[in-house]
Amino acid sequence: MRPWEKNIRRVAPYVPGEQPKGDNLIKLNTNENPYPPAPGVRQALKEMDYDQFRKYPDPTSNELIKVLSEYYQVNENEIFVGVGSDDVIAMAFMTFFNSELPILFPDVSYSFYKVWAELFHIPYETPVLDDNFCIHKEDYYKANGGIIFPNPNAPTGLLLPLEEVEDIIARNQNSVVIVDEAYIDFGGESAVKLTRKYENLLVVQTFSKSRSLAGMRIGYAIGHQNLIQSVNDVKYSYNSYTMNMPSLRSGVEAVKDDRYFKESIGRIVKTREETKGRLKELGFSFPDSMANFIFASHRERKAEEIYKALRENHIYVRYFNQPRLDNHLRISIGTDEEMKEFFGFLEGFLSN
Amino acid sequence: MRPWEKNIRRVAPYVPGEQPKGDNLIKLNTNENPYPPAPGVRQALKEMDYDQFRKYPDPTSNELIKVLSEYYQVNENEIFVGVGSDDVIAMAFMTFFNSELPILFPDVSYSFYKVWAELFHIPYETPVLDDNFCIHKEDYYKANGGIIFPNPNAPTGLLLPLEEVEDIIARNQNSVVIVDEAYIDFGGESAVKLTRKYENLLVVQTFSKSRSLAGMRIGYAIGHQNLIQSVNDVKYSYNSYTMNMPSLRSGVEAVKDDRYFKESIGRIVKTREETKGRLKELGFSFPDSMANFIFASHRERKAEEIYKALRENHIYVRYFNQPRLDNHLRISIGTDEEMKEFFGFLEGFLSN
Repeated sequence: MRPWEKNIRRVAPYVPGEQPKGDNLIKLNTNENPYPPAPGVRQALKEMDYDQFRKYPDPTSNELIKVLSEYYQVNENEIFVGVGSDDVIAMAFMTFFNSELPILFPDVSYSFYKVWAELFHIPYETPVLDDNFCIHKEDYYKANGGIIFPNPNAPTGLLLPLEEVEDIIARNQNSVVIVDEAYIDFGGESAVKLTRKYENLLVVQTFSKSRSLAGMRIGYAIGHQNLIQSVNDVKYSYNSYTMNMPSLRSGVEAVKDDRYFKESIGRIVKTREETKGRLKELGFSFPDSMANFIFASHRERKAEEIYKALRENHIYVRYFNQPRLDNHLRISIGTDEEMKEFFGFLEGFLSN
Repeated sequence: MRPWEKNIRRVAPYVPGEQPKGDNLIKLNTNENPYPPAPGVRQALKEMDYDQFRKYPDPTSNELIKVLSEYYQVNENEIFVGVGSDDVIAMAFMTFFNSELPILFPDVSYSFYKVWAELFHIPYETPVLDDNFCIHKEDYYKANGGIIFPNPNAPTGLLLPLEEVEDIIARNQNSVVIVDEAYIDFGGESAVKLTRKYENLLVVQTFSKSRSLAGMRIGYAIGHQNLIQSVNDVKYSYNSYTMNMPSLRSGVEAVKDDRYFKESIGRIVKTREETKGRLKELGFSFPDSMANFIFASHRERKAEEIYKALRENHIYVRYFNQPRLDNHLRISIGTDEEMKEFFGFLEGFLSN
């Protein structure tokens, strides 16, 4: 071992869902939106002044923050933007979770929380979800160095009612509570309005799911200006210019077109509810998802077996080879056409 | 003070150069390239399949790494890419600088090094440059937890000959040595070839200066595959998808057009040398810059005074209100047209 090797930060990285290449495949494995972003995005990118790329982008992301502040009816100094909600949450972990006490997050949840905690050497505890994958708010009443949970939760899709979210925030005013609302637009009630009432609340959202811009990497946080100021200080101590010109531009256009946004969500929700019905008919059970995916297990066939069969037929869903999760599949909601092909294969497979 | 406030990471952020808005100004303050990126960038962006933005980008940045590996004649597993060289260096600090011993970097240097060290709680020492702003390699012969320096140095533009760079690397094989080559393409000899010889060397470069893509945020590091693997592990523990689709695409096109790249550098170098001559005539002195900027002080007039006068006339240069630097201006090399206007104003101002 070389002497400098002992100074390397040892981590066990998060493993993102596969990004298979090719056109003839159905990709229901990374909760992407099956519909393209708002048409204004295409137009704006085509019209970008290419000569300007030689210059640094606006480090304050001002234009994007402006449209977001109007959309959510908050002040501009109550919004922070980053390179996807992963960047936003990583920065928030670095900024807020520096206590000796453990932070708390559910044992079944976005698996990146544990990775960030380990990266930044943050102690953590993971209260156990019940057998129906429900969060029990009482598990979050103990002393802690911070709290984070997704709402709806991932990979279950289960929504915690806003009163229970508020209860967790209200009982933890000595900690920063982060509500990770990556999937909130698909049917939940956002905690954004609670940021007016609680200074310790940070709500994180993303353009990757409901706004069809995963490829552009845009996430944001809304909270009290003191929280936003602190996370901005850390951001400016890490990288002055995180958001590039096309991402800032597309973000603005995506927010502006609210009609397109709502229509596209409406279509996904409709397909999701139809998908639930079909899955039940085929012998699957699942928590009642309010997200753009369904976390399902079959009464007879093993999840891994179904996953592999689908994969061989170029249909990708997400399989987690982990305790408690390893007999479930996380199926992202695709277009009606894609779901038809998915069920077409599945019916044949399950009848054998 | 709220209880959670004591858990906030306290930092004094880096302050980036001003990004003034408007068209009628001459911007020589952030070392941007005065020429647009390679024409292929424009074309490629116009032709991007906008529907694909709904999907996540390639987390491995494979296409971009491939062209870089061909360009620099290294293996693909010897390259890491990030959101500008700031992101790359921040990740490298997090990955490699975890010793109890202080890391070393010059006292007059890229001021972000100190900010990163403080962000990550890394002890550091800053060997003092001599009165001519030269690095003395002997200052880097002591026990340390890592070394980083820019070559050419910023904001001086001074180049350390490759033999001296190699000497520092060779005498520090117990540490990781990072050579920050943000400006190397403007006249220096790169240390990339030394990565074959020294496993402890990481060379960092950027698309923001010589490749005219500051607005796109692309940086990269070249080093032994073990170093690259370690920094990738940290990256995948921080944010799986740092590079968005347009940045990956533009990066590829910029590397492909080597003729455009060299022509544009040739023009800047020519203008830089002419600028040196004109500055001398006007009573300025400066280290002999091998970068795309000149760090100059005037024999009679105070730097701050000149800076303010230029600014009032919509000509922006960089002024550092810091000990040792506060009687210098860092002047980025613009187009011949821009330098003509710069000198036009300066002549009038200095003759009053």
